[in-house]
Amino acid sequence: MNKEESKKIIILGAGLVGSLLSIYLAKRGYTVHIYERRADMRKESMSAGRSINLALSDRGWRGLKGAGIEEEIRKVAIPMHGRVMHNIKGELAQQPYGEVGQSIYATSRGILNCVMMTEAEKQGVTISFNERCLNVDLENATATFSDKKVYGKAIIGTDGAFSVARLQLMLATDRFEYSQHYLQHGYKELLIPPGENNSFLMEKNALHIWPRGGYMLIALPNLDGSFTCTLFFPFEGDDSFASIKTKEDCTNFFKRVFPDVVPLMPTLTEDFFNNPTGSLVTVKCFPWSHKDKLCLIGDAAHAIVPFYGQGMNCGFEDCVVFDQLLEKHGDNWSALFAEFQQARKPNSDAIAELAYLNFIEMRDRVGSAQFLLQKKIEARMHQKYPKQWLPLYSQVTFSEIPYSDALSNGLRQEEIMKKIMLLPDIENKWDSEDVEAMILKHISI
Amino acid sequence: MNKEESKKIIILGAGLVGSLLSIYLAKRGYTVHIYERRADMRKESMSAGRSINLALSDRGWRGLKGAGIEEEIRKVAIPMHGRVMHNIKGELAQQPYGEVGQSIYATSRGILNCVMMTEAEKQGVTISFNERCLNVDLENATATFSDKKVYGKAIIGTDGAFSVARLQLMLATDRFEYSQHYLQHGYKELLIPPGENNSFLMEKNALHIWPRGGYMLIALPNLDGSFTCTLFFPFEGDDSFASIKTKEDCTNFFKRVFPDVVPLMPTLTEDFFNNPTGSLVTVKCFPWSHKDKLCLIGDAAHAIVPFYGQGMNCGFEDCVVFDQLLEKHGDNWSALFAEFQQARKPNSDAIAELAYLNFIEMRDRVGSAQFLLQKKIEARMHQKYPKQWLPLYSQVTFSEIPYSDALSNGLRQEEIMKKIMLLPDIENKWDSEDVEAMILKHISI
Repeated sequence: MNKEESKKIIILGAGLVGSLLSIYLAKRGYTVHIYERRADMRKESMSAGRSINLALSDRGWRGLKGAGIEEEIRKVAIPMHGRVMHNIKGELAQQPYGEVGQSIYATSRGILNCVMMTEAEKQGVTISFNERCLNVDLENATATFSDKKVYGKAIIGTDGAFSVARLQLMLATDRFEYSQHYLQHGYKELLIPPGENNSFLMEKNALHIWPRGGYMLIALPNLDGSFTCTLFFPFEGDDSFASIKTKEDCTNFFKRVFPDVVPLMPTLTEDFFNNPTGSLVTVKCFPWSHKDKLCLIGDAAHAIVPFYGQGMNCGFEDCVVFDQLLEKHGDNWSALFAEFQQARKPNSDAIAELAYLNFIEMRDRVGSAQFLLQKKIEARMHQKYPKQWLPLYSQVTFSEIPYSDALSNGLRQEEIMKKIMLLPDIENKWDSEDVEAMILKHISI
Repeated sequence: MNKEESKKIIILGAGLVGSLLSIYLAKRGYTVHIYERRADMRKESMSAGRSINLALSDRGWRGLKGAGIEEEIRKVAIPMHGRVMHNIKGELAQQPYGEVGQSIYATSRGILNCVMMTEAEKQGVTISFNERCLNVDLENATATFSDKKVYGKAIIGTDGAFSVARLQLMLATDRFEYSQHYLQHGYKELLIPPGENNSFLMEKNALHIWPRGGYMLIALPNLDGSFTCTLFFPFEGDDSFASIKTKEDCTNFFKRVFPDVVPLMPTLTEDFFNNPTGSLVTVKCFPWSHKDKLCLIGDAAHAIVPFYGQGMNCGFEDCVVFDQLLEKHGDNWSALFAEFQQARKPNSDAIAELAYLNFIEMRDRVGSAQFLLQKKIEARMHQKYPKQWLPLYSQVTFSEIPYSDALSNGLRQEEIMKKIMLLPDIENKWDSEDVEAMILKHISI
């Protein structure tokens, strides 16, 4: 193998993680060729009801910064300082995500992906579209397409939750650990269009939530003044996708449980019945790699539910860790892949669990007075004792603390807060020195 | 479709469950064609180190009886009345499996399978060997082989833990629940040959166990006076397949932890290094079927670890339930498949958990005086109050109680016995009226 061939890397999938990783690899002198199943989205319009808004947080920004594209994305991202909860009467409650100045950023998946693919091409990456990988030969790092076979020094599978590369790894690996688990909930995209002159019809710099126990609606702002809304809703049951059969069912349901959004959604019933219903999967597997030939990264290795807004952020953190290991191991791909999967597996398992727990929290707890009070106590503790008490949400969203540490810290904090919230008259003495001392005592145990 | 075609059923896999099910179907007038990946084992000798002994218990016998082949199998089965535990000094302890007259039956997988295939052919079933199914088209009930496609009214996948039919179902089904999980332990078959004149060198009518905490050895009798032994042993670690590299390592290890078997195993080191190391997988999935076209049965739907000796018995119970539903639904395959998977899924999940729990019990607890005492108390309770107290092992092995009920009953009994075993001086008052009254009180709560 000549030097050129030893630098040739194949990436399967030009999504967010594949595009970002290709930039990191290209900057280190690798010849990267990405094969993407879909058409070039820069040339075709996005399919309706699949636009999807993402929330970039610190781990994601770090990934973009390392690839030199942070500034470009800042221009198209809308800061969201906190949650705005809408109750069934249409009354609002606010809750900041972190300290003043800390935000997560609403970004369109399409715009983000287009910017990253263009940047990758500028760095010399080749992207071939409409190329569906049929098979991967793990022993030879060869990918088969309908009309050709291509090979490289190694193949990186960034082909998402339904990864073809992962399936081949599963079939070829002895004692491959694997699970795919679906929620009983699906999701449906809906739209709140802009007001006059592209004005925002609700608070712009917030993530809006309509928590309703068994289900919820959320909305994220877009640059044009619209909001992309997502209904997370059971597939079956009393209030469910199955139970809403007619436009009338749909309107009645929304008027009953989300009354304040109905006037803002002129195309509600059309969107509801025309847009596809998505499913929500958690995928776990191990190993993620085969010798020095194949490695899975991002959703292909660890698809999670979207309720912590960390799927993309976790994938971008994968890229940062991968790049650090390139620095450490150079072309020793088997050492790199082995260390990568060991380092990332506990963290991807942890964010999978956190994402699921946040589903319960957003759906059931976020609207309650108890929950808001608990968060207020935690925020106060953090303000006074920033080193002793960093809220779980901040650990996940505004820090680089490994997800697995965040999870164990968070579970411990939750135990402490459970005891605190049971104190008599906590509503009135929540900011007392007594309560504060008690929390500090629990922390120190 | 003419009447003949509407009766044509394809079965993938002529293993124990496929063969048995084919007999049930043939007896109800279906035209059954089985396609088997392996060669006809009636014509070729079994591959070394893969003979495997099974323990037939009540559920299995019921399945054989329904197909009319119980008597034939009785002739080649050896009753095992209980466990014989061998401690590290070579001392023995006995524990009956159930009441007097209750046994499980050691049977060779090969003999059993051969008898069943021959019986299936007598009933008009066609079996084609050396036919590896490559693909299943779920919409047309068509199976593809290297040189042909075959179709039927429906396809039944009895192709085991690594089922091709299940993989196709997984790829084609939206929101398919799936997990495959491996133990950190593997297994290795070893042999204790017969003594002079085909005599048994250990107690014949027993299942022998050498429990050693992190691992164990078991032995089941064969008709020729030999015992087939299986070592369940970690893949990695201090004492593990990885740590035993030479014949000397092997002999030293066995002399240290299984001293009494070493003189009985003249080919120990040859067997250890020549026989393959098997892995131990638990597979769970759902659904098991696709419309009226495909249904998975047996290990293909629910592979479990072997520690309760229930894998085959559970598969045979599948066949009994399937036959009952044939009686109920006739040719309405979609109704039959739907009811079958709803009925069997909770039970297969339960036996998967029981099998795993029994691994812990056999490995860690079975040798302890506390455990033996607990079992003695339970046996006494059962003898005096047979309706109020049926030991878990008997529920699983000597009854037709659904596995899911057995599991919940068993967990409840274990809670009660935990409290009883903590009583001071339980060693001396275990058969007292006080203890008896206490257990009865707990049961009635």
